[in-house]
Amino acid sequence: MSDQKTLAETFNRTAYRLSGQGPREVLKTVLEQADGTTESDAYGKGWIIEEFQQEMASYLGKDTAVFFPSGTMAQQIALRIWCDDKNLPQVAYHPLCHLEIHEEDGLKELHGIKPVLLADKSRLITLEDVTNLEEDIACLLLELPQREIGGQLPEFRELEAISVYCREKGIKLHLDGARLYEILPFYQKTAAEVCALFDSVYISFYKTIGGIAGAILAGEAAFTEKSKVWKRRHGGDLISLYPYILTSGYYFKERIGKMDQYYRDAIVLAERFNRCHGIATRPVVPVSNMFHVHFEAPKDKVEPVLISLCEEYGIGITGNLRDFDGGTSYFELSVGDMYRHVPQNGQDAMFEMLDAKLREI
Amino acid sequence: MSDQKTLAETFNRTAYRLSGQGPREVLKTVLEQADGTTESDAYGKGWIIEEFQQEMASYLGKDTAVFFPSGTMAQQIALRIWCDDKNLPQVAYHPLCHLEIHEEDGLKELHGIKPVLLADKSRLITLEDVTNLEEDIACLLLELPQREIGGQLPEFRELEAISVYCREKGIKLHLDGARLYEILPFYQKTAAEVCALFDSVYISFYKTIGGIAGAILAGEAAFTEKSKVWKRRHGGDLISLYPYILTSGYYFKERIGKMDQYYRDAIVLAERFNRCHGIATRPVVPVSNMFHVHFEAPKDKVEPVLISLCEEYGIGITGNLRDFDGGTSYFELSVGDMYRHVPQNGQDAMFEMLDAKLREI
Repeated sequence: MSDQKTLAETFNRTAYRLSGQGPREVLKTVLEQADGTTESDAYGKGWIIEEFQQEMASYLGKDTAVFFPSGTMAQQIALRIWCDDKNLPQVAYHPLCHLEIHEEDGLKELHGIKPVLLADKSRLITLEDVTNLEEDIACLLLELPQREIGGQLPEFRELEAISVYCREKGIKLHLDGARLYEILPFYQKTAAEVCALFDSVYISFYKTIGGIAGAILAGEAAFTEKSKVWKRRHGGDLISLYPYILTSGYYFKERIGKMDQYYRDAIVLAERFNRCHGIATRPVVPVSNMFHVHFEAPKDKVEPVLISLCEEYGIGITGNLRDFDGGTSYFELSVGDMYRHVPQNGQDAMFEMLDAKLREI
Repeated sequence: MSDQKTLAETFNRTAYRLSGQGPREVLKTVLEQADGTTESDAYGKGWIIEEFQQEMASYLGKDTAVFFPSGTMAQQIALRIWCDDKNLPQVAYHPLCHLEIHEEDGLKELHGIKPVLLADKSRLITLEDVTNLEEDIACLLLELPQREIGGQLPEFRELEAISVYCREKGIKLHLDGARLYEILPFYQKTAAEVCALFDSVYISFYKTIGGIAGAILAGEAAFTEKSKVWKRRHGGDLISLYPYILTSGYYFKERIGKMDQYYRDAIVLAERFNRCHGIATRPVVPVSNMFHVHFEAPKDKVEPVLISLCEEYGIGITGNLRDFDGGTSYFELSVGDMYRHVPQNGQDAMFEMLDAKLREI
């Protein structure tokens, strides 16, 4: 614990970082440009929230969209609505779905919905997993990319086949698109083309977009109208959400055009990691701006190496290394604006030293 | 509907207002003073949130406190914890309790908790209502002041008696203290002295305090620890809540010392309304900074009068007049900083004209 804190602290002091959008002064930046007389949103009404919702609905190719304070809230609500519609409190998702591992079982405790876990922890959900499903479900949730396994993606034609199958069977298909923007360069599709396969879509604004918090849930009007009622029930219909909306909107415009750059940089960076001794990225070739860096050595051996490199070269590799199966370790890396500021010389020297040090472990 | 919009629009254009803290530029003001390098809170951790929680716990005289994005979320969770503790999903509260009329039945739909309604819509809950209760309940919620009936308050000794009774019977007592600060001048008590009667307390930061949104839930550590788990389940454990926390803290310090002034101003203002034809405030003598102004005439008759006064004197009386029982109408008024800016001459003239116009209806 104290070791990990030291890595995080060392990382937080670096001027250069391989990952992320950097220290955030987002709110201050946005408000410096805002007209002080702008009228606040109020309980989901007002142009600040309504205009942003419309923009996002249009970006996603859906009729309507609703802004939520969090994805946790938005997604539980989406699944609840689909379950209520079918009067069937059962859904299916990946064993490493956010709802399963990060939400203290809100879906079960608040909504009484039982999840069926598809596939296993090490791989993506396939069409076969879906067609072999024996239980009745109201909704299937797919996360693109599947974050906890390094941000992997199915082939687009497999997605299409799953979508067709679900429509035939009357199963609603929900997209956990927290990182939807990041996969568009790989798929070579628009957001709307991906979302057309799904009945409901959630996107996030504080990952690569770099906002403070906030999420959008989109779908047909009958669906989003119900979601507003549930948003109030959850305590998410705040009197004002504008700090999140303004920053989401600002950084969406700022960064939505850079996803291709982040994706290409991720490919280069992963390739560089893979040339080091005892490292393999997952996936080997990234399909978005994110990937996981796996070390053959355990955390307690790797962490001192990362700290010493961080201090020597002033380049942060990660602030959060985790133990993994079989005495190995890994960290998650998401390429953002910060990567392009890292001096090439320093980076090259650092990777050579990383390789050398890992050979000594 | 179009009439009401016109009243709201007219009100929103006024420089002077009898109620409220005025147009809010709160976030910008606060951030202009913030150090741009301040580290954000992250999922309930970090000094910004932890320090504020401690300050509020200490102000309320409770062991611990947790910041929530909304009171809706905080209060449902408080009741859920008390119900789970007793394995009894039943609580009691006033028929005009926020949970009963403003939350789309979240308590019932998300938590499966059944409320028993105490007293009737026209009056406060009394000790007798509580002792006569036939159903078993895990928790009694009291709202001080009782907003929907003009912000009325029981005598403090009656509160004490209810508290003693609940402790004897093993009933948890929860305070809806959205407007707790505002009642302290009347009771001549500290917040901690009032809160000592309760097992759990919720306070709000966007009413008289004038923050953007946000709430604190306070109690013993065993209680607040559970509330953090439920906060995550609700989707309220946002990656960052600092826009709400910074503004809550700033305006708390700015305004907590002014509650006595607001309270006295409310008494003067209510007295002035009561001298007008066909008007009676509720309560007649305010016990906090808020009261309701009731007109004998219906909304469609009173609204044009309020609009014309607003335009003639540049003083906003209200932006939201509502129909009430038996063809009458009313609005809610909360005295804040704005009242002291209203020129006395203009105010006197306006009230004379209000009186005259109401006689003509």
